[in-house]
Amino acid sequence: MHLPRAMRLVRFRGAGGSETRLGLEEAAGGNVVDLSAAEPALPRSMRAFLESGQSGLAAAQRALESGRHRLPRETVRLLAPVGDPEKVICVGLNYRDHCLEQDVKIPKEPIIFSKFPSAIIGPFDDIVHPEESSEVDWEVELAAVIGKKGRHIEESSALDHIVGFTVANDVSARDWQMRRNGRQWLLGKTFDTFCPLGPALVTKEAVADVHNLSIRCSVNGRLMQDSSTSQLVFRLPKLIAWVSRFVTLVPGDILLTGTPPGVGVFRKPPVFLKRGDVVQCEIQELGTIRNKVV
Amino acid sequence: MHLPRAMRLVRFRGAGGSETRLGLEEAAGGNVVDLSAAEPALPRSMRAFLESGQSGLAAAQRALESGRHRLPRETVRLLAPVGDPEKVICVGLNYRDHCLEQDVKIPKEPIIFSKFPSAIIGPFDDIVHPEESSEVDWEVELAAVIGKKGRHIEESSALDHIVGFTVANDVSARDWQMRRNGRQWLLGKTFDTFCPLGPALVTKEAVADVHNLSIRCSVNGRLMQDSSTSQLVFRLPKLIAWVSRFVTLVPGDILLTGTPPGVGVFRKPPVFLKRGDVVQCEIQELGTIRNKVV
Repeated sequence: MHLPRAMRLVRFRGAGGSETRLGLEEAAGGNVVDLSAAEPALPRSMRAFLESGQSGLAAAQRALESGRHRLPRETVRLLAPVGDPEKVICVGLNYRDHCLEQDVKIPKEPIIFSKFPSAIIGPFDDIVHPEESSEVDWEVELAAVIGKKGRHIEESSALDHIVGFTVANDVSARDWQMRRNGRQWLLGKTFDTFCPLGPALVTKEAVADVHNLSIRCSVNGRLMQDSSTSQLVFRLPKLIAWVSRFVTLVPGDILLTGTPPGVGVFRKPPVFLKRGDVVQCEIQELGTIRNKVV
Repeated sequence: MHLPRAMRLVRFRGAGGSETRLGLEEAAGGNVVDLSAAEPALPRSMRAFLESGQSGLAAAQRALESGRHRLPRETVRLLAPVGDPEKVICVGLNYRDHCLEQDVKIPKEPIIFSKFPSAIIGPFDDIVHPEESSEVDWEVELAAVIGKKGRHIEESSALDHIVGFTVANDVSARDWQMRRNGRQWLLGKTFDTFCPLGPALVTKEAVADVHNLSIRCSVNGRLMQDSSTSQLVFRLPKLIAWVSRFVTLVPGDILLTGTPPGVGVFRKPPVFLKRGDVVQCEIQELGTIRNKVV
């Protein structure tokens, strides 16, 4: 049985529906196949779906190929492709130029921090600007999604543990990240709504070379970040191997791989997000997310 | 209907069973009422049980009062009372004497960091000493469990959001916490097995005064930490209010409130855990957890 599994998995709500469903984008921004209608026995949580492994992916492939249960895009509201991961793992200082712009050395080892899953919002949801910060910043990032459990994973088999990729915005309150909370980054990184994700979980079979994708962020239409994932200091096999020295990775875990140069805090003068701004993050082959600051 | 709800909620596996069940300890270390047998419709996840709110707690109370479905303690293996929280939130430097022992100022604001839920183990499970560290240390801590969702919670209503308390060991690899990972504490705190929890989720109605409990840790029978929760710098209402400025708290979230003096790294000379050691953490009215280092 031939299963290429090049797919764009999504979570969505249908017209007037409050129910979360799984689906498949036919193309970036295209119509959505209602996977939960085609395969009612499948779980509605992407994490649980990914735990079902190859059988879940095969069911999704069948639904896509059936040509049935198609919903017009305009009737669908996309949610974050994974809403309930056990972990949101983040990497700091992982683009060469992003280190240079802040005048710090390129790290010899990955620097790992985290967000709580409660920070996750959908690809077109609003970022809530907290009263507590006056330095809210953007960070477009390539995010990998874990599809297979593992600990002490070798670099050579690391990609077997990734099911696919999505676009993330690692929204950051710089005042809290850099000057408060004993310089532990967590609080500045994990305000509610500080992790827009989407639009789809694009399976790795759909991506030609994940280490050669253009990655961009614009604010109110002005291009702020413009780089390539070829500039990553630590690439995915290294990151997966590294993180799994410490923790067991499980299906649904999200790994944000760091941001390229062009963030607001290191501009001269610094630029921060204000209510009304629209942030657009875009990665080649993966898609675009767009979030208004409210 | 009178519902005092002074209860010791547990998760356990029964004789020969691989299935996780909810239960109630009749007393610390006593027999266990099989709540999942008494009320089969209840969820088996403590997080989902807590999401059911007052109706779940009322069902638990009925099961306890029925006197049925009692299992002898020796047939039961206790698991962490919550195994799948959305968040494990930790507070640093929150006992006055613990600040003094490391010669740092008492913080003016709580310092918040986190562990991944994958670090959680049961009250009598083994702590796995990672090859990656040679400075594994103990930290007995009072942990609060969230029972009610909230954001921007006032100090005056903060206790309404706590369902109860348990004992935690915030196991810490000091080399990774203090000198590696760009001084972000996460990795040193979140190795698999670095969050023993239990033995029970003791509902707040069963605790006379959570801010006046003796708290102790011993290693191989030698008393290492011996303090009182009266020494907390920031008490629970302040901590709940503080954390909820940043994130939405949800049922099942665990808040570790910091450790008293006597940890290994600040002893002269320093003492670290080695394979074969047994760490016992004990809080008055809550119970005792005991974990072997392997």
